Amino acid sequence: MNAEYYFIDAFRTLRTRIGDDGARIGNRVYSKDLFFENVHFKRRWLSPYQIGYKAMIVNISDAVAMNAIPKYALLGVAMPKSMSLHQMDELADGIKDAACDYGIEIIGGDTIGNVKLDISVTIVSETDGRTLTRQGLKNGDILAYTGRIGTSARELRYLMAGGKVHSKSRFVRPRLRQRFIQKTGRHLRCGMDISDGLFSDLGKLSKANAKGIAFTKKIPKPLGCSGEEYEMLIAFPPGKARTIRRLAALTRTPLRIVGRAKRGKFTNRCKAHHF
Amino acid sequence: MNAEYYFIDAFRTLRTRIGDDGARIGNRVYSKDLFFENVHFKRRWLSPYQIGYKAMIVNISDAVAMNAIPKYALLGVAMPKSMSLHQMDELADGIKDAACDYGIEIIGGDTIGNVKLDISVTIVSETDGRTLTRQGLKNGDILAYTGRIGTSARELRYLMAGGKVHSKSRFVRPRLRQRFIQKTGRHLRCGMDISDGLFSDLGKLSKANAKGIAFTKKIPKPLGCSGEEYEMLIAFPPGKARTIRRLAALTRTPLRIVGRAKRGKFTNRCKAHHF
Repeated sequence: MNAEYYFIDAFRTLRTRIGDDGARIGNRVYSKDLFFENVHFKRRWLSPYQIGYKAMIVNISDAVAMNAIPKYALLGVAMPKSMSLHQMDELADGIKDAACDYGIEIIGGDTIGNVKLDISVTIVSETDGRTLTRQGLKNGDILAYTGRIGTSARELRYLMAGGKVHSKSRFVRPRLRQRFIQKTGRHLRCGMDISDGLFSDLGKLSKANAKGIAFTKKIPKPLGCSGEEYEMLIAFPPGKARTIRRLAALTRTPLRIVGRAKRGKFTNRCKAHHF
Repeated sequence: MNAEYYFIDAFRTLRTRIGDDGARIGNRVYSKDLFFENVHFKRRWLSPYQIGYKAMIVNISDAVAMNAIPKYALLGVAMPKSMSLHQMDELADGIKDAACDYGIEIIGGDTIGNVKLDISVTIVSETDGRTLTRQGLKNGDILAYTGRIGTSARELRYLMAGGKVHSKSRFVRPRLRQRFIQKTGRHLRCGMDISDGLFSDLGKLSKANAKGIAFTKKIPKPLGCSGEEYEMLIAFPPGKARTIRRLAALTRTPLRIVGRAKRGKFTNRCKAHHF
């Protein structure tokens, strides 16, 4: 077992809420993700603005994935002492612009000097109805994902080889499917964002529901193992397929069918995507 | 201006809530602090259990300081890959024991591999009445702090010189004044925990209220500049002095008078305490 999961498992005994993208308490959903230099990004790949923006987006993604409306953010920012005031302004602008784009108010946090740029964001969201979780998959349910996946891994390879990617690229600025999830949320059986890669996240869905997957067609490994896509992985009953397709068209969301849930299990065989 | 304050200031324009130990939204108080290796502690100073426990306590302190009741915690744990499963268990036990001691449920979080052990904790607290903030100081108010301060800095010097400190020491296991604050909260004008040092935190109180301080007696610098005490700095009107003293005696809380608030300003002259 992966060391990270081992550690998380130590807290699982307390309650089973840990495992979803966020934790629901009453009508609030809480989510928290780390965005660390040399774990999730390298500083030569992204400008301070882009780092700030993406640190927020990967966190907002958890709220969107649960069909909750992000409202407040708390920041934890550890910054290298070598960062200039101009770079700090840029970083803050990236964070503030992402907050503004999603209607989030930054209410507090902590800032320290550190050897590298490590950001932690907590998002407080509100939900008025059903949240989307990883639980609920039934045999025969259709599994699908939004958008195109695989580009993030390809962009990551360029970057690691010393190349540059466009400032509007998926890796730099992930696009969240907020409108699509808001429209389809009540028809979906379960859902999560594809943060660790399609296969990895299918594995989590499979484990959470003790189900296997009958794939419609073979998904190539470079595509299935591409992490940090921030597209949505969803499941819905076959009877809802037409509704989902209609709402996908309405919100201009490309939708690709992966297969159907069945008895059995599915194990992810990708390597961990953190470098 | 310190780089950290510069960065925090970039968010101050959004709303003024940033500045207190936590942010209040309705009947909830949110606080978030970082507890990073080589910034707040060195791994040879504390066992993994002690690191986990203290990471929680320094965060719970913010909730206690605002007279809110901590309820839920979200963790962000970045761990070196060299940590053994046994060390992870110990770390998790420290976190869980602190949570248990204060009746907190751990509801989620994120774990990653990293070059060092960096922990971020978000505490969600509840408040049914008045929260204690840094605002409200009036001329003539009595300023006081709980317990003894100065020991944490002395212990830190021992540790930095290669020495060891007792596992029940203040630096290893800060004691929070939860009961005292719960009892006195409604009589206090303002309050905060002494996390950066008495002088530093008096400076923040002075700035937040545009007031100076008439010291009752001179406080030696090694004492006033000692950080990470996690005692409470409070202010109350002279008419409440007897009540506060009675409640301090009831809760066995040593209380020391610093002086009185007056017109003017007070500037902290300690060096930043992070090493």
